[in-house]
Amino acid sequence: MSGNGKLNMVGLCGSLRAGSFNHALLRALPDLAPERMAIAEAPPIGTIPLYNADVQNQSGFPAEVMALAEAIRAADGVIIASPEYNYSVPGVLKNVLDWVSRVKDQPFRAKPVCLQSVSGGQLGGARMQYHLRQIMVFLGADVFTTPEVFVGGAQQKFDAETLALTDEGTRDFVTRQLKAFADYVDRVSG
Amino acid sequence: MSGNGKLNMVGLCGSLRAGSFNHALLRALPDLAPERMAIAEAPPIGTIPLYNADVQNQSGFPAEVMALAEAIRAADGVIIASPEYNYSVPGVLKNVLDWVSRVKDQPFRAKPVCLQSVSGGQLGGARMQYHLRQIMVFLGADVFTTPEVFVGGAQQKFDAETLALTDEGTRDFVTRQLKAFADYVDRVSG
Amino acid sequence: MSGNGKLNMVGLCGSLRAGSFNHALLRALPDLAPERMAIAEAPPIGTIPLYNADVQNQSGFPAEVMALAEAIRAADGVIIASPEYNYSVPGVLKNVLDWVSRVKDQPFRAKPVCLQSVSGGQLGGARMQYHLRQIMVFLGADVFTTPEVFVGGAQQKFDAETLALTDEGTRDFVTRQLKAFADYVDRVSG
Amino acid sequence: MSGNGKLNMVGLCGSLRAGSFNHALLRALPDLAPERMAIAEAPPIGTIPLYNADVQNQSGFPAEVMALAEAIRAADGVIIASPEYNYSVPGVLKNVLDWVSRVKDQPFRAKPVCLQSVSGGQLGGARMQYHLRQIMVFLGADVFTTPEVFVGGAQQKFDAETLALTDEGTRDFVTRQLKAFADYVDRVSG
Repeated sequence: MSGNGKLNMVGLCGSLRAGSFNHALLRALPDLAPERMAIAEAPPIGTIPLYNADVQNQSGFPAEVMALAEAIRAADGVIIASPEYNYSVPGVLKNVLDWVSRVKDQPFRAKPVCLQSVSGGQLGGARMQYHLRQIMVFLGADVFTTPEVFVGGAQQKFDAETLALTDEGTRDFVTRQLKAFADYVDRVSG
Repeated sequence: MSGNGKLNMVGLCGSLRAGSFNHALLRALPDLAPERMAIAEAPPIGTIPLYNADVQNQSGFPAEVMALAEAIRAADGVIIASPEYNYSVPGVLKNVLDWVSRVKDQPFRAKPVCLQSVSGGQLGGARMQYHLRQIMVFLGADVFTTPEVFVGGAQQKFDAETLALTDEGTRDFVTRQLKAFADYVDRVSG
Repeated sequence: MSGNGKLNMVGLCGSLRAGSFNHALLRALPDLAPERMAIAEAPPIGTIPLYNADVQNQSGFPAEVMALAEAIRAADGVIIASPEYNYSVPGVLKNVLDWVSRVKDQPFRAKPVCLQSVSGGQLGGARMQYHLRQIMVFLGADVFTTPEVFVGGAQQKFDAETLALTDEGTRDFVTRQLKAFADYVDRVSG
Repeated sequence: MSGNGKLNMVGLCGSLRAGSFNHALLRALPDLAPERMAIAEAPPIGTIPLYNADVQNQSGFPAEVMALAEAIRAADGVIIASPEYNYSVPGVLKNVLDWVSRVKDQPFRAKPVCLQSVSGGQLGGARMQYHLRQIMVFLGADVFTTPEVFVGGAQQKFDAETLALTDEGTRDFVTRQLKAFADYVDRVSG
């Protein structure tokens, strides 16, 4: 916990497109989170190069990677909202994790992590989340279990113009998850 | 099958580093493959940008993506050799698949695919392969089942200088897989 | 193909309860399958004991296991419809597969397999299917890819009295899968 | 924590055979665990019937299921050692979990769980563990991440006569995992 006395969360999005529903979900979170939880967006990831161990050895870590690692390290927890691409984690997001995983004092270790996903289809990104959970085992993160948030049928849940999360059922469900995640962070942060 | 009367395979590597063991495995394959199988390396993937739907909509597909898609489409099958990063598919490789999956007449559909992986540790990249298998379900590829090739303890299997695959047991095992994969391609290519 | 000139399928259900929606789905299949496909129910699995290698060594295989293995071996393909229990394959179904996997001339090898699942919730058993796909890699089965059938919201799709599959959208979708599966069986059965 | 002032663990084995290596691993644990951890074997599971919702509705839960659920509830954590059957969780173990998951006040919720596996092959049961981790998400358990214990090449690690765990490297590694798991239990049991 930092100086504001709140649980400070970093929100990381797995999509780069401007109109991303997952990014829209992240923007909706501060309004749904419990009073004692603050959520800030992660530093941008769109300019992080493809991981290459030779590049790392020659040039070290890109500044964007170090900034993200530092933001995660300083936070009380991480909320990842990501689309599912091809039944798995987007390459964009996985590439970021591949870089961050090699940073000294890898910042996901024992860090509480909460997963969310939005998709146009029925499954709401579930397949992505189970792959991400396995990745987080290697990183040693403490991934929150249930309730899980899989938002399917995105077009009906967000306003077409503003991308505001308008579906009441989804808002209630996300609110419940964030409250349970806050309790989890309290419990496992010893 | 193209004009040479052989089963023409494309070999795709999930690592960008120059000294990649997985790339070294791909280079060893022509020597181990059955006479009737030819294996060519896929066009390079190291300059493919991070996937972004906005970029795709504005600028279309990068030339490197189209070249890879065309190489896959023209081949009788694909052999993917990739490291495991963080218990899953490298972001670099996943990013390529995220692009290729959106190409018109997506080229993995009903395409025979064979998986291989090398790692320094005990498991030889197994966790990567099962995630890649799930990705290939979406793409509709026909992924060869067994025998599977998981090369663990890479440092003992390749020559430190030349990166030649020197371990006899591994050479035998890969030879057996390629022979069985050739039979599989014959069978499922109707 | 046996004497009737049709593609003869065995339908295997992962639930033992009398009112199982997955069993109801299996019963609906003959009406939805293409003319050239015949679907017979697998021999009953409800009395197969828990797998124990000591029992196998002392008493051999239960008759029910041998009957199921023989039915699979004689068929042109297998259709498995199963609920998801605890985000995975029901123990009942997995136990049957654990027995069958040890039978001489293991019958799933190179056998075309099609997966279906019904659940009350949103995901329609998807998590079960991806675990089952990994199991089938070991067994060397040729598992059909897409279209996949995940029937969520079961209570709205089946008649409460008769358990007939009444939802038109689901009937159409299953019909399309069975047609595509028949084509797949033709193609890979070489 | 119960009256003995220790972290009281229940050890659950996924194999029924008398000479099980996984059972042998469980028997070795008390000797390797930190002073402050006590490990008791779970009540026997070999007579638990195949799960059937109709049986549950008519006859309630078998006494063996209730005894196991109570043992888990009373413990500070659960250690599961299981073989991998067909690239996944043994049906025997999954069947037990299918029963226990339906018990009132489901006992795995927020319970620390540690996974171990032994196999004859290279991968040491890893594929089983990742499926079990997904199952535990549904159950809401807090599954310990790393170090993971995958014991491959079982025949070289255990004494052929006594089934004692004789391999020093494995003993050291398991000792390290148990110590880290004890710290984890302290941390997340809040």
